[in-house]
Amino acid sequence: MKSFVSVDSVENINALVDDALEIKKNPHVHSCLGKQKSLCLIFLNPSLRTRLSSQKAAFNLGLDAAVLDVGSQGWQLEFTDGVVMDGDKAEHIKEAAAVIGSYFDVVAIRAFAKLEDRDQDYSEQILTAFQKYCPVPVVNMESSTAHPLQALADVITIEEHKKKAKPKVVLSWAPHPKALPQAVANSFSRWMQVVDYDLTITHPEGYELAEGVVGQAQVEYDQQKAFEGADFIYAKNWSSYADYGKVLSRDLNWMITADKMKLTNQAKFMHCLPVRRNVVVEGRVLDSDSSLIIPEAANRVTSMQAVLKNILEGLN
Amino acid sequence: MKSFVSVDSVENINALVDDALEIKKNPHVHSCLGKQKSLCLIFLNPSLRTRLSSQKAAFNLGLDAAVLDVGSQGWQLEFTDGVVMDGDKAEHIKEAAAVIGSYFDVVAIRAFAKLEDRDQDYSEQILTAFQKYCPVPVVNMESSTAHPLQALADVITIEEHKKKAKPKVVLSWAPHPKALPQAVANSFSRWMQVVDYDLTITHPEGYELAEGVVGQAQVEYDQQKAFEGADFIYAKNWSSYADYGKVLSRDLNWMITADKMKLTNQAKFMHCLPVRRNVVVEGRVLDSDSSLIIPEAANRVTSMQAVLKNILEGLN
Amino acid sequence: MKSFVSVDSVENINALVDDALEIKKNPHVHSCLGKQKSLCLIFLNPSLRTRLSSQKAAFNLGLDAAVLDVGSQGWQLEFTDGVVMDGDKAEHIKEAAAVIGSYFDVVAIRAFAKLEDRDQDYSEQILTAFQKYCPVPVVNMESSTAHPLQALADVITIEEHKKKAKPKVVLSWAPHPKALPQAVANSFSRWMQVVDYDLTITHPEGYELAEGVVGQAQVEYDQQKAFEGADFIYAKNWSSYADYGKVLSRDLNWMITADKMKLTNQAKFMHCLPVRRNVVVEGRVLDSDSSLIIPEAANRVTSMQAVLKNILEGLN
Repeated sequence: MKSFVSVDSVENINALVDDALEIKKNPHVHSCLGKQKSLCLIFLNPSLRTRLSSQKAAFNLGLDAAVLDVGSQGWQLEFTDGVVMDGDKAEHIKEAAAVIGSYFDVVAIRAFAKLEDRDQDYSEQILTAFQKYCPVPVVNMESSTAHPLQALADVITIEEHKKKAKPKVVLSWAPHPKALPQAVANSFSRWMQVVDYDLTITHPEGYELAEGVVGQAQVEYDQQKAFEGADFIYAKNWSSYADYGKVLSRDLNWMITADKMKLTNQAKFMHCLPVRRNVVVEGRVLDSDSSLIIPEAANRVTSMQAVLKNILEGLN
Repeated sequence: MKSFVSVDSVENINALVDDALEIKKNPHVHSCLGKQKSLCLIFLNPSLRTRLSSQKAAFNLGLDAAVLDVGSQGWQLEFTDGVVMDGDKAEHIKEAAAVIGSYFDVVAIRAFAKLEDRDQDYSEQILTAFQKYCPVPVVNMESSTAHPLQALADVITIEEHKKKAKPKVVLSWAPHPKALPQAVANSFSRWMQVVDYDLTITHPEGYELAEGVVGQAQVEYDQQKAFEGADFIYAKNWSSYADYGKVLSRDLNWMITADKMKLTNQAKFMHCLPVRRNVVVEGRVLDSDSSLIIPEAANRVTSMQAVLKNILEGLN
Repeated sequence: MKSFVSVDSVENINALVDDALEIKKNPHVHSCLGKQKSLCLIFLNPSLRTRLSSQKAAFNLGLDAAVLDVGSQGWQLEFTDGVVMDGDKAEHIKEAAAVIGSYFDVVAIRAFAKLEDRDQDYSEQILTAFQKYCPVPVVNMESSTAHPLQALADVITIEEHKKKAKPKVVLSWAPHPKALPQAVANSFSRWMQVVDYDLTITHPEGYELAEGVVGQAQVEYDQQKAFEGADFIYAKNWSSYADYGKVLSRDLNWMITADKMKLTNQAKFMHCLPVRRNVVVEGRVLDSDSSLIIPEAANRVTSMQAVLKNILEGLN
């Protein structure tokens, strides 16, 4: 693997997942792979799991890691070509990415959607600029439209807990007080289909994901009907793609409840976290035996480690 | 030792102090103990000594450490059970602590008192929640009501400088422009008594510490009288416990001065730092030969290293 | 080398540059030199290259490094002697520097000029206080009036690309929307003269650098004339030294353009970054083959590593 920016970066997902499951059994077996190599973790947005799991993955690989919070520790970056830089932005991505890429062997970047301009967000301006100007492999730690490290952790988690070869997986929209990006839902939908699970997406009207994201998934506007026979319920809020970035509904009837979980085939509950208790999902679902949220989050170390291992092997 | 949250976490303080003094002689002798282990340092409040001494202790033990500034790099955490999370707080401590505990072998946390609600502060809500939901050992890097790593460093410092088996130690309140927690004073009082020094506490009326904290210590409202025969003067400001969190006095007559130090038995001066010069204590006391503030601060590496060593030994 | 605070810290610049060029050929050859040693990187101001290149240099030397952002992670420091500390500043540099120096083997500090009071900035109050109170070697990561790590990287870069023993080097002022310190220009001017390049400084009237900085350099107020026969064009904005900290001109006629580069002897273009495209310099100059900005920035790892190696060797 050269870079890891979306599901399209992965030649063979099954092989990557198998590798991840092996890594999880013995996380320190590749502790010399990162020797004399270094990783830069760049955050344009807050992070808890991604920040910590990425550092832990680096520790496990013996890889030196430096963290940069661009906004608070550095300065604002300019992403537009040809501009006269007489405003607030002190440095162009052309220079910043090239310099960082001259220091480190791998660069990982987190940069959320701004939810103001769909075309701009879906052009993946920041991630694309890093790929273009940074001469070393780039890892997507959640971009405007994708969160493939989360989706890989989700696949690992489902592989560990599924009871049939092709489980029914339901991606359910859920209410949230704020407007959130579509990145997690996008990547989840795409990865579920590439690994060939039986995917249903359920959400209120107006919350349709982009066409290329939905692919062959079933779309069901009746949440309860969608839950029938489900093996995994994956809850996530996102803002509207059609009416871009808008919150069209905060309807608590879409909250995942213990009662709705009873409609399923004893489904496991998943969420990428952070999760709003009693808004997105009832606390008692999170606290029940059916919840996989903690092992799912723990698999973020495994997914990052599998990706970094793959990239490091390509460097040597 | 499983966790290190207060003096009650320590079975044998003398053994821990002896261990610390040994570690100080050769800080790198356990440099393999932390191999393939990792530590997360979580800060909800600013820090200089604790942040740096903890990382240094980890370096000495060969322990990988990641630092998380929750407010600026992550987001606000919810600590109340059963709440509908539709406000500013993005993640519940239940999830955050469980996830962090799934990544790291030891978790250390700093979370100051808010000084708004005494019951809430003294319930140690945040520290207790971490202990409850985090499956790995927790180290208190200063909580609402206790700062045991500081108190351990203080004991080490007194052991190094005492000239009699049971020195007279005076904890003296001193003025400060801001309202400060009681944490340092609380832990100092408790540790001094457990190691069986002769402890006197002196402060203006209204600044009485909690009953369980004062224990068998002598309370003397006349500062000059308290200083007579003292071997160690430990200055610290705290806000009122009775009239909780309030500043009842900024009386500079309570400042520690070179003249007052003359009343003592050539006492050594101690303070946990940061210290307000010429408010808490005269600059010339800090700059005199009687001041132990720098070796005391240096012992923060030793105290953290002794605690982490003890915890790591319990992991294997 | 004990500390590295300015060109005066270096006994033999040629030897240091030769050492740096050797290090660059094999950056990991001294990977055991930092064993059981540690470095503290202290930032009072934002940083991208310095922050990351310093960490990378530490990685290459096997040196443990901790980063402290004083303002956001710690608190404001007091630098004035004898003051009554009843205001915003929580800790005096006397204590902070002594404590940090008790934890780490080397301390590096970044503290920009405030551009309010020339005497204060040129007294190097912060850097001098660190040198005075910190018992270990201090590295200047850009102070009020000097940026020697940048200047060393600049010398390395010129040595790698020069085509004659004594190239003509032109330091050209260029416009910028904000008032910037003189630190980079000061150090560049001094280092160029110590290594005995043929230095010309060009700027609008009123932008004269301090006398001791200009030394024997030629000052030419006609930018185009200055460019004639130049082998290296080094662009940098600075605010006025005479009318201290003021922006006297934002004249875009001083921008470095491709047309002006044609006046030179096929000069290479240099800038310390971050650079404002199409304000300081035309984007097409930065994007041309004559630009050295990325290799120059890459040499910041080499310059820091050469300095740290030299200091570490002095510790053993």
